[in-house]
Amino acid sequence: MSKTALADKSGLSLSAVSDHVERLLTEKLIKVANVGKSSGGRKPRLYTLNRHAGNVVAIELGTSSVRVALCDFDCSIICHDRAAVDLAEGPENVLKRVLALTGKLMSGHGIRKETVMGIGIGIPSPVEFISGLPVSPPIMPGWDRYPIREFWAKHFNCPCYVDNDVNVMALGEHAKGLSFEVDNMIYVKIGTGIGAGVICDGSLYRGASGSAGDIGHFDVGADVLCWCGNTGCLEATAGGKAIAGKARELAVTGRSRFLQTVLQEKGELSLKDIRAGIEQLDPLCTELIRESGEWVGRVIASLVNFSNPSLVVIGGGVAEFGDVFLASVRQGIYRRSLPLATRHLQINKSILGKMSGLIGCAFMTVDQLILGSTDNKPETFLTSSR
Amino acid sequence: MSKTALADKSGLSLSAVSDHVERLLTEKLIKVANVGKSSGGRKPRLYTLNRHAGNVVAIELGTSSVRVALCDFDCSIICHDRAAVDLAEGPENVLKRVLALTGKLMSGHGIRKETVMGIGIGIPSPVEFISGLPVSPPIMPGWDRYPIREFWAKHFNCPCYVDNDVNVMALGEHAKGLSFEVDNMIYVKIGTGIGAGVICDGSLYRGASGSAGDIGHFDVGADVLCWCGNTGCLEATAGGKAIAGKARELAVTGRSRFLQTVLQEKGELSLKDIRAGIEQLDPLCTELIRESGEWVGRVIASLVNFSNPSLVVIGGGVAEFGDVFLASVRQGIYRRSLPLATRHLQINKSILGKMSGLIGCAFMTVDQLILGSTDNKPETFLTSSR
Repeated sequence: MSKTALADKSGLSLSAVSDHVERLLTEKLIKVANVGKSSGGRKPRLYTLNRHAGNVVAIELGTSSVRVALCDFDCSIICHDRAAVDLAEGPENVLKRVLALTGKLMSGHGIRKETVMGIGIGIPSPVEFISGLPVSPPIMPGWDRYPIREFWAKHFNCPCYVDNDVNVMALGEHAKGLSFEVDNMIYVKIGTGIGAGVICDGSLYRGASGSAGDIGHFDVGADVLCWCGNTGCLEATAGGKAIAGKARELAVTGRSRFLQTVLQEKGELSLKDIRAGIEQLDPLCTELIRESGEWVGRVIASLVNFSNPSLVVIGGGVAEFGDVFLASVRQGIYRRSLPLATRHLQINKSILGKMSGLIGCAFMTVDQLILGSTDNKPETFLTSSR
Repeated sequence: MSKTALADKSGLSLSAVSDHVERLLTEKLIKVANVGKSSGGRKPRLYTLNRHAGNVVAIELGTSSVRVALCDFDCSIICHDRAAVDLAEGPENVLKRVLALTGKLMSGHGIRKETVMGIGIGIPSPVEFISGLPVSPPIMPGWDRYPIREFWAKHFNCPCYVDNDVNVMALGEHAKGLSFEVDNMIYVKIGTGIGAGVICDGSLYRGASGSAGDIGHFDVGADVLCWCGNTGCLEATAGGKAIAGKARELAVTGRSRFLQTVLQEKGELSLKDIRAGIEQLDPLCTELIRESGEWVGRVIASLVNFSNPSLVVIGGGVAEFGDVFLASVRQGIYRRSLPLATRHLQINKSILGKMSGLIGCAFMTVDQLILGSTDNKPETFLTSSR
């Protein structure tokens, strides 16, 4: 982008943009890309991220596994790997496992600690972004207010940023996915749990205490008890666990011969089996996914009415069911949304898929490094978070 | 505020703030308030709005009446009046009525056209803010894309700004009501209709096409048909019209003796009669309001989970029921919201009451004039909106 375009986009004055550009050129975080088209006068210089400025470590913690990626400074993934972890083993044990995996990746690809400029982590918990602390995580026992950044500061001499997993997925999708041009976007992840990440006027919106986007416990009026103690929560009605539970019932009662056979053979049922059922044209498997999609769509309709985005991106494991799921989500949205709110609304499946979280972790890190925020240097937060 | 504080709040550089301050001092829109406390060096100058810079006309259009206020440049109301209007008479007729009322107020208070710096209007319709045009208004037949600004430009030589009525109420409440310090706030209006205005990271959030905050058609799962064609909409379940309808049923069936007597005497029932019923300890009147409050609270709980504000303000005619209503709204919110989202959440009744819309119209106008937006000078939009 040119300085003029950067000023437009950021709302900063041209002189402020020039100051930032000079600093970032000196720090070698950006470089001159080429010379743009002239609109009459001198041709403007265009600036771009310097992908060789250094490396970024992206870490995505899930309930049962962790993904780690090494990226260049342009958020492109150089290499990645995953490993099984159990979050219930507590932060020390889990993070040691993640550190080992990171070390293995680095030595395997000849990347030294000194070139790592920052570490970005997405975790399945509400996060106080400014301190990087998990806050009352419902599915991470023992992690409440655990200083994750401090752990990494013992091993790397660079800043570390922590955010909620769905937030980083939304960031990834916004930065490198469907469209960076879209200013108002909602990313909805439908996996075991259901959550949303909100891009509001061009930036990630975290809310007053970092819990924005928590849509898993929207009341959809269904007669199901949720682990949170309420009834009718979206997650308990349409999430991956709910789908698997209903599939089990269809198998046990013999209503779906297909699922019954699979359950008898394997002793358990997963989302993969339901996908196989859809491919084999088992109508009850298709119905399960359609039903989930409609519930999700009805809730997204409310979000669309309330926040009037121009793009909704559907991601997560259940979204992998493809067109059957997406069509019923769309139907649910159009049925309950107001005409004005859906007039220019796009509803699409994530194109980054499983990579959106890792790319988002890298983007969050590069974004913060570019901003030059000084409140997250190891020497600062090592004392402040104690 | 000092220049330093303005730079902090706006995110602009100190030099950009200085430029703006100089321009606004020259235009006499702001003035030096006094000299602030020193934090060591020279004492900083504090700047404030120049309330004598000129006048602002604030207009709030409702379905059956209009309110007009003349304000000073600090958004304080000098005088105001209201008149009955029927929006269905179409824009020309209604706006002529509003113009006459405005003229009457001005001559009554010796305010000349030349001192009017801007006009701010709130209307019960989605609005494309940039053009000031109503877009597909469901309850304003004949107003779709009617150029309201053009109408005023024929009579006043100053900019005119139009926005949705609930948006201006949220602005008013944020600017002069409960707290200007709050960055994330939801204002919920419960009257005949139900809607929300969203303050997001310090600014009014309008969404991609200006329809953000439309919560009246959230699906609450109740078995009622809404005028929009869907079933179970919040507005059709808990709005003023729904409450009046249920009251009528209680009267006709004789379940509430109190309401039955009132209906027989007056031939109709209004919200005022239900309030009288509550004061006379009619349990069914109290139950009506409690029920409405709980439905509203359940929907606000979803909004709280999704957008994690630090303040929810309840306004509109039904909010005037006071503690009975507010207590049940709170109950609904706490029952369905996540602990983290409600930890520091305040839920309050509007303190500006019926004035929030007018004050918000004035604030919107002053805000735009201070920003110095040039795209709304009569000579610009007279041509562009055709």
